[in-house]
Amino acid sequence: MAKPLNIGMIGYGFMGRAHSNAYCTVSNFFDLEYEPVLKAACARSEEKVKDFADNWGYQSIETDWRKLIARDDIDVIDICTPNNLHREIALAAAAAGKMILCEKPLAMDAAEGEEMCEAVEKAGVANMVWYNYRRVPAVTLAKQLIDEGRLGRIFHYRSNFLQDWTISDDLPQGGAALWRLDAEAAGSGVTGDLLAHCIDTAIWLNGAVKDVSAMTETFIKERMHNLTGKVEPVNIDDACAFLAHFNNDSLAIFESTRYARGHKALYTLEINGEHASIAWDLHDLHRLSYFDHRDDSIVRGWRSVHVTDGDMPYMDKWWVPGLQIGYEHSFVHHVADFIEGVASGTPAGPTFRDALETQKVCDAVLKSAASRQWENV
Amino acid sequence: MAKPLNIGMIGYGFMGRAHSNAYCTVSNFFDLEYEPVLKAACARSEEKVKDFADNWGYQSIETDWRKLIARDDIDVIDICTPNNLHREIALAAAAAGKMILCEKPLAMDAAEGEEMCEAVEKAGVANMVWYNYRRVPAVTLAKQLIDEGRLGRIFHYRSNFLQDWTISDDLPQGGAALWRLDAEAAGSGVTGDLLAHCIDTAIWLNGAVKDVSAMTETFIKERMHNLTGKVEPVNIDDACAFLAHFNNDSLAIFESTRYARGHKALYTLEINGEHASIAWDLHDLHRLSYFDHRDDSIVRGWRSVHVTDGDMPYMDKWWVPGLQIGYEHSFVHHVADFIEGVASGTPAGPTFRDALETQKVCDAVLKSAASRQWENV
Amino acid sequence: MAKPLNIGMIGYGFMGRAHSNAYCTVSNFFDLEYEPVLKAACARSEEKVKDFADNWGYQSIETDWRKLIARDDIDVIDICTPNNLHREIALAAAAAGKMILCEKPLAMDAAEGEEMCEAVEKAGVANMVWYNYRRVPAVTLAKQLIDEGRLGRIFHYRSNFLQDWTISDDLPQGGAALWRLDAEAAGSGVTGDLLAHCIDTAIWLNGAVKDVSAMTETFIKERMHNLTGKVEPVNIDDACAFLAHFNNDSLAIFESTRYARGHKALYTLEINGEHASIAWDLHDLHRLSYFDHRDDSIVRGWRSVHVTDGDMPYMDKWWVPGLQIGYEHSFVHHVADFIEGVASGTPAGPTFRDALETQKVCDAVLKSAASRQWENV
Amino acid sequence: MAKPLNIGMIGYGFMGRAHSNAYCTVSNFFDLEYEPVLKAACARSEEKVKDFADNWGYQSIETDWRKLIARDDIDVIDICTPNNLHREIALAAAAAGKMILCEKPLAMDAAEGEEMCEAVEKAGVANMVWYNYRRVPAVTLAKQLIDEGRLGRIFHYRSNFLQDWTISDDLPQGGAALWRLDAEAAGSGVTGDLLAHCIDTAIWLNGAVKDVSAMTETFIKERMHNLTGKVEPVNIDDACAFLAHFNNDSLAIFESTRYARGHKALYTLEINGEHASIAWDLHDLHRLSYFDHRDDSIVRGWRSVHVTDGDMPYMDKWWVPGLQIGYEHSFVHHVADFIEGVASGTPAGPTFRDALETQKVCDAVLKSAASRQWENV
Repeated sequence: MAKPLNIGMIGYGFMGRAHSNAYCTVSNFFDLEYEPVLKAACARSEEKVKDFADNWGYQSIETDWRKLIARDDIDVIDICTPNNLHREIALAAAAAGKMILCEKPLAMDAAEGEEMCEAVEKAGVANMVWYNYRRVPAVTLAKQLIDEGRLGRIFHYRSNFLQDWTISDDLPQGGAALWRLDAEAAGSGVTGDLLAHCIDTAIWLNGAVKDVSAMTETFIKERMHNLTGKVEPVNIDDACAFLAHFNNDSLAIFESTRYARGHKALYTLEINGEHASIAWDLHDLHRLSYFDHRDDSIVRGWRSVHVTDGDMPYMDKWWVPGLQIGYEHSFVHHVADFIEGVASGTPAGPTFRDALETQKVCDAVLKSAASRQWENV
Repeated sequence: MAKPLNIGMIGYGFMGRAHSNAYCTVSNFFDLEYEPVLKAACARSEEKVKDFADNWGYQSIETDWRKLIARDDIDVIDICTPNNLHREIALAAAAAGKMILCEKPLAMDAAEGEEMCEAVEKAGVANMVWYNYRRVPAVTLAKQLIDEGRLGRIFHYRSNFLQDWTISDDLPQGGAALWRLDAEAAGSGVTGDLLAHCIDTAIWLNGAVKDVSAMTETFIKERMHNLTGKVEPVNIDDACAFLAHFNNDSLAIFESTRYARGHKALYTLEINGEHASIAWDLHDLHRLSYFDHRDDSIVRGWRSVHVTDGDMPYMDKWWVPGLQIGYEHSFVHHVADFIEGVASGTPAGPTFRDALETQKVCDAVLKSAASRQWENV
Repeated sequence: MAKPLNIGMIGYGFMGRAHSNAYCTVSNFFDLEYEPVLKAACARSEEKVKDFADNWGYQSIETDWRKLIARDDIDVIDICTPNNLHREIALAAAAAGKMILCEKPLAMDAAEGEEMCEAVEKAGVANMVWYNYRRVPAVTLAKQLIDEGRLGRIFHYRSNFLQDWTISDDLPQGGAALWRLDAEAAGSGVTGDLLAHCIDTAIWLNGAVKDVSAMTETFIKERMHNLTGKVEPVNIDDACAFLAHFNNDSLAIFESTRYARGHKALYTLEINGEHASIAWDLHDLHRLSYFDHRDDSIVRGWRSVHVTDGDMPYMDKWWVPGLQIGYEHSFVHHVADFIEGVASGTPAGPTFRDALETQKVCDAVLKSAASRQWENV
Repeated sequence: MAKPLNIGMIGYGFMGRAHSNAYCTVSNFFDLEYEPVLKAACARSEEKVKDFADNWGYQSIETDWRKLIARDDIDVIDICTPNNLHREIALAAAAAGKMILCEKPLAMDAAEGEEMCEAVEKAGVANMVWYNYRRVPAVTLAKQLIDEGRLGRIFHYRSNFLQDWTISDDLPQGGAALWRLDAEAAGSGVTGDLLAHCIDTAIWLNGAVKDVSAMTETFIKERMHNLTGKVEPVNIDDACAFLAHFNNDSLAIFESTRYARGHKALYTLEINGEHASIAWDLHDLHRLSYFDHRDDSIVRGWRSVHVTDGDMPYMDKWWVPGLQIGYEHSFVHHVADFIEGVASGTPAGPTFRDALETQKVCDAVLKSAASRQWENV
């Protein structure tokens, strides 16, 4: 019989929903030592958090996150706030001995991130950052194939995260719904929001990044601000692209934008190795493309692997071959692995410390875009 | 506040899991008048049903379905047994005034199906059959496009359901796991299991089928039987293909097999109309292919519509554009629509009566395969 | 130094162009014992055949095909006329001892075809029918893979040829441009024009066809006739689909239509074997899809083989890996193989006798559509 | 009746074949004022050039390009030599008043290119560089769509040219077959060979490039040299990637490598505009992907346009809808447009002057890779 793991959720937005669904679902499909219990939801607006709690079955609500952290009946603090609150909440939660699941990116910058790492390490509390795409089965399978040595020496890595939802001039910035366009709340634009995902996966699959040369752009310079009611300068990056070297001497290009007409959430990655290559994208997340040069030459080609079989990562928990799962399942896997990490004592990544590496790359990228120089990570 | 809708589940296999997940999930994403409550699970094996109930949170168990039906605290009987039990359970449930959600195909044949229809209609109980693929958003969108008249006169319909999991001689037949290979339990092979899905969708999208010419094949003639322990003749159809005319004078070809190497669960459909065509397949279920001849000729081509936007069927309930859902969500939509049907008094399809039409086509297909004649439906 | 092979071309339409291009090109890319020489072009209209001859560099023209056949300086008669003239010309050409390259289908029916076979065999002249798709490199590669035994026992064959160019009511029938819609000139509609291609390839890849059950349809019943100037009944089949068994006990479905909106010339084929499957289509003719169940399960998937490498059929003659060839190259390969057959004494297929098998299947298909019975081939 | 245009070809390698085929073919499909005549082929090796001339039907040979240029019966000099000879030959040919068709890249660097431009402009001779990919019909269609304003303001351009043929350590460098790996002959590696294509198309479609930040890499540092017989340093770039701004303020990333396992000749491009986006790649060169945000939202998606219809660029000259052409046809179109330019007096691009712009970008890219700075073009 699974033991309860009491969750205290801070935030009720898109990620609040995705995480809550994962907590509700994980025990129906995974056999784990702990079962998440939706103990409390917390947000400043009592009305909104009450609706959220009712919908998902949270047993109680709080409107002050400090009170939530102070409660004895909470094991895990899940931070789903805008980025500018991560540090303060995480430091308090660590001080209170709570496990912490923090939305990505870890912090506003690497300095904040370092502080947070030190706090959770000093407190000795379990910690993890929601870079969920590692746990899309096709991406996890890519990791497995690389770790098995199937690709050989890596020459190239390329990764994009392309969206098109901010092209209109009429879109405002700021406030609950659009804090990602507000540099005060988000820290950066696509770099922290989207490229951070690309970088996390890249480091996981291909090791540390050495240096970068970046460019950023803000296509629409001013937008109405939801908090001030005035037209204000837009301070986030609408688009960012950078060149990089990894420590293993492979080359990389990364690009993200919210101005790529036709792409809703097209996170792509491709890795070219001496013997084999791998490609994946989020719009068909249940497929992995794989090319193996060692195949017989007359039948050699990119294979479209439908990652739905029981011997593929996580897929023994779900349906039968051919039946695909979706976006939200990556969060379920995230929770399952977190719980296994807690149970086994071997923490699942990315920990705060792992996520700090991504933060450092983001910082170098933004610095390079400003300096127009190559910057070391 | 949603009112409880007490579910009594009979069966604990693959479909038991899919339905249970739908009951658990639907209220988190849909705002409905009733909320499913997992009241009781029922199966002959006490140990197995107990495990199942524990996993999913059913409040009680039964080992005799007649007892389940007799309980006052059950509103809905969900029939997830092998096909040869559908009729008996449904008749009893109707007589007891229970709503019924029955797995497909409705019955072993149309005669049984007719009896079941009469029973639920006489009892006046809500009833529905789990032809879940209607509620994959891309398929529902296809229905919407057809109903809007975008395709014009329909010329052609083609639909396949291709699998490859029974190719090995070593695979036995029968028993809990493999009853689909046992004609006693399943009635037929791919015809009732897979083509029934194709036919249900086809009737829904394109109207009634007039006549058919079919062929069936059993490639592996004998298999060890799990119930008898002996090698026994295989009496199901491993493969079935048929030609058909619809009442609207369009032509159709349908094919299903479990011997199509490389296809796990490749349900495909394509409709060619005067102005536009539509295609879809289950291996990328979140995409709809659409061709519109009225487009400017120099930019005319098949469009790959990523069915993840909020203005597409059901998708306002889930995530954001670009983030795909999976197989299991079709069951969630099925439950949501069933509940809306109960609440509104306008039943959601396919009702038993709707599903009887599919049964009649299946009967005509099997008859034609035996007679080597065209048979009217 | 290659010896001349003097070509006498009858017809100047689409196929006249495709064949002429092949004759002009083949010696630049293939090292052959004979080099085609464009000796004479023949058609009833002096003006049209003169333009054609000037364009392609034919050295002379004729307006009576009997005169062409009578000429001593012609080695090969290439029959590019409407189908209803194939027999008469071929019989005369054979009697005159000419080699014959005949457009497909071989004849108006199998009886005519049998007569033609006997004529060329009695005369001992080289003969071949332009079923060019066998020599699309990806299709030739499919043949090689099957002959190597990679697929194992074959279970299923499916093949379509879908077009959409006759949907409009306004399209007339008959005359030079539209003789394919005129049953007098064409014999049948899609069956002889399009399905004949599918059947030729199928027999080549999978052996003889045993029996068929077919349906045909003429969607637009009357069209203005270019020859009579009146609205006349349409006597060809606009669409045809049939079920079949091969002699090797595999099952097949074939379909062709000119009413499949969105498909211009979509010839598709797929073969499912015990170990492996193959798929191909004409819209991306330089790719072969290949699935091998013997691959490691975690990286198993359909491979998209880009058939452009030097070790793939014919491709050592063209460019470098990655650079695709087109439709017309299949005719160049056809000529190259015909010449090699003449030089070596081992005739390249399909000979008239081979093509007669396809004719017999077409006859059975049309007979079955009329009788609504299964018909043996 | 077309007037002769006498061609003098220098070189007999891959491009010599591709151009010769274009000269042989163009008049069969295009109605032009001039018809190319294969007057003379020239190369240092008499044996090799004789074989080449025999194969293609060149009327004569030369072994000294200066003699070829001196001949009165030559109208056009076609330069298919390694890059380090372009300048010298072009200057001489211009001085002799010959029209010049020069292989790409124009020169070893922009200084050479400027000299060449001045020479042809001073001489007033027709001149063009073989950036053939502009004339793949799908790419030409992209240009048309952009010029029609369908995309609106451009935000992003991305283009790759990925190959994998030099991954092996065993591959030597230099000599007739492998001069592209020898910096003495080629000037640079993938930058001049492959990225030059990407840049030419990009400038044509999206205007001038402003500045770049680049990185290059030579993965295999030493290779046996075919000319010296010794292991020598490799001085070309195996891979190159760069960021760029266009003058229209759009952002770009470009990448090329010969170490991308699985990609034979994957030239890709994508352009994202305010209203619409376009994508294309060389592995399926007959397709253009097009996304138009102005489509009805529920049927909005990337369209796969099969560029084979008669109203699409160049395609009225070839076959019928659905029948694709190949790589070599881009050269046929190139010749056709060159001849039309000569006939009309409006030169077809890219002229030497146009190609110089690409050279300047290449120079800036290589300079930036060395300086690790952004460099202006």
